[in-house]
Amino acid sequence: MRRLACLLATLTVTLPVAGGLPAQSADPLPSWNEGTTRQQIISFVEAVTDPDSPDFVPEDERIAVFDNDGTLWAEQPIYFQLAFAIDRVKAVAEEKPELKEQEPYRSILKGDLKPLMAGGEHAILEVVMATHADMTTDEFAAIVADWLKTARHPTTGRPYTEMVYQPMLELLAYMRANGFKTFIVSGGGVEFMRVFSEQVYGIPPEQVVGSTIVTKFEMRPTGPVLIRLPKIDFIDDKDGKPVGINRNIGRRPIAAFGNSDGDLQMLEWTTAGTGRRLGAIVHHTDSEREWAYDRDSHFGHLDKALDEGRKDGWTIIDMKDDWKVIFPPVRP
Amino acid sequence: MRRLACLLATLTVTLPVAGGLPAQSADPLPSWNEGTTRQQIISFVEAVTDPDSPDFVPEDERIAVFDNDGTLWAEQPIYFQLAFAIDRVKAVAEEKPELKEQEPYRSILKGDLKPLMAGGEHAILEVVMATHADMTTDEFAAIVADWLKTARHPTTGRPYTEMVYQPMLELLAYMRANGFKTFIVSGGGVEFMRVFSEQVYGIPPEQVVGSTIVTKFEMRPTGPVLIRLPKIDFIDDKDGKPVGINRNIGRRPIAAFGNSDGDLQMLEWTTAGTGRRLGAIVHHTDSEREWAYDRDSHFGHLDKALDEGRKDGWTIIDMKDDWKVIFPPVRP
Repeated sequence: MRRLACLLATLTVTLPVAGGLPAQSADPLPSWNEGTTRQQIISFVEAVTDPDSPDFVPEDERIAVFDNDGTLWAEQPIYFQLAFAIDRVKAVAEEKPELKEQEPYRSILKGDLKPLMAGGEHAILEVVMATHADMTTDEFAAIVADWLKTARHPTTGRPYTEMVYQPMLELLAYMRANGFKTFIVSGGGVEFMRVFSEQVYGIPPEQVVGSTIVTKFEMRPTGPVLIRLPKIDFIDDKDGKPVGINRNIGRRPIAAFGNSDGDLQMLEWTTAGTGRRLGAIVHHTDSEREWAYDRDSHFGHLDKALDEGRKDGWTIIDMKDDWKVIFPPVRP
Repeated sequence: MRRLACLLATLTVTLPVAGGLPAQSADPLPSWNEGTTRQQIISFVEAVTDPDSPDFVPEDERIAVFDNDGTLWAEQPIYFQLAFAIDRVKAVAEEKPELKEQEPYRSILKGDLKPLMAGGEHAILEVVMATHADMTTDEFAAIVADWLKTARHPTTGRPYTEMVYQPMLELLAYMRANGFKTFIVSGGGVEFMRVFSEQVYGIPPEQVVGSTIVTKFEMRPTGPVLIRLPKIDFIDDKDGKPVGINRNIGRRPIAAFGNSDGDLQMLEWTTAGTGRRLGAIVHHTDSEREWAYDRDSHFGHLDKALDEGRKDGWTIIDMKDDWKVIFPPVRP
């Protein structure tokens, strides 16, 4: 535990914060192999930023949206926020003993995730929300920050915030250097992601769109607080992604990056706009360096969106072929 | 009607877009009279931007929130979005004749707003939402833009987007020139405000937080659309303002400007944060150049927030005493 120190303190030095990459860098995408995928991305960015191009887009309309799980960071063997929720179940069950008798909590406490998985995405979101509520927003943020400092990925042993894709960090920086405003649009909980989004991705809290639980303003003797209630407010997934984009961003992106069927409607919504658009799918094809999965996966299920992407000419990012490295280098 | 032309086209030239004001301007607040109010604002901005000040705030945390109705633009004799809704009732009643028999629509069609007013803020929001639904988001934005081109304020005859406060436009520009990110946080409909916020205030759509109605993603043969349903999703007023701030911005502002009890919780939430904070109330005291109202007003009811503001040392902006001009000059 000694060398783990304070994650949030080390993040700024260990992780390449995208905003720091200079625009004039010789190669803005050093972790991307030469080839069609890289070329499609660069060609899009050059077209919309060249004032003499028929595809030129004014800077304030250069909105790019990125899914998080499986697109900016890994999502195997389980969503990282679910790993957090599972770690939280024990603490929550101490406060609410009745949960110990209820599925899927009873099984989770025994280390068995099957009943949870059997409940599908909605059951997972329910557990995530239930273990994230009945506290103030400040308390929740502190718990997340604390967990990120100590929790380690089960197979790599790395902090979760180092399980991010180096090529995507470079892409975020490259797009911002070209006047894009980058947003996360994820099914993940917005207040979970906001704890690390700025330091890890260079994306500030106000540019993170995600699922929300109901919060309530309360005036306490010590001052006002926002209480997180155990009730889902909005699920920012599938059909919900264009709705979330409209609610929080208020204009249609010109570029969208996803990796699963949960991103299908966001990709459709983005690419259906007038003018040049970029829709891209991160395809998990690398069983050696990461994981290989698509149509049969519990997490990051990719089926319809892959077919539609191929049909509609979206950019399919093949992790094995297109990326020189997957994760940022391990610090000694 | 000849000289009314296209409002949105003229806005960029007729209205001082705040972002355009140079930071090095000799006087960044030329429409503000010398005095305590002006000094409190400047002193706050200087303190949080001076790296050697104990009150220094890093640029990414310089979030300033502004109510819209009564704070950035006028709200008398009725909320401007309500004027839009009333103008819309006729069109909507043609499509849904059953409304002609229902209150408050029946009276509105006769030009009588009393039953509407008797229903209070919630009834008003209901009418606003009902007349704004059952169309796509793109269709709605087009209707709003069209209305803004032709509608005129009943007493001044000016376009509604010229009924904005010149001193507040200067303030927005001044704060942005000092590294602040400016947001609207208003009870008004977010998709109504986003049509003009960027051109009028220099505030882009993604920095507008407001009330929302439920929208639904739908794939049509012509492509994907978002349908506005006649159902309130979220009311960004009173207790809802800190909730909306947390939902869309995700961090606590360090400065908040409001003018009514609807802004009380936003002001409390903002000023309760650690470090130096600015809470300010625009007090409508000028019956000659604008309107004078507070505790007894239907629109912009200001009672508790005025008492609390005086008690807690918030900056009270006295429109009559503190502002040299109210509205931008009329173009010849």
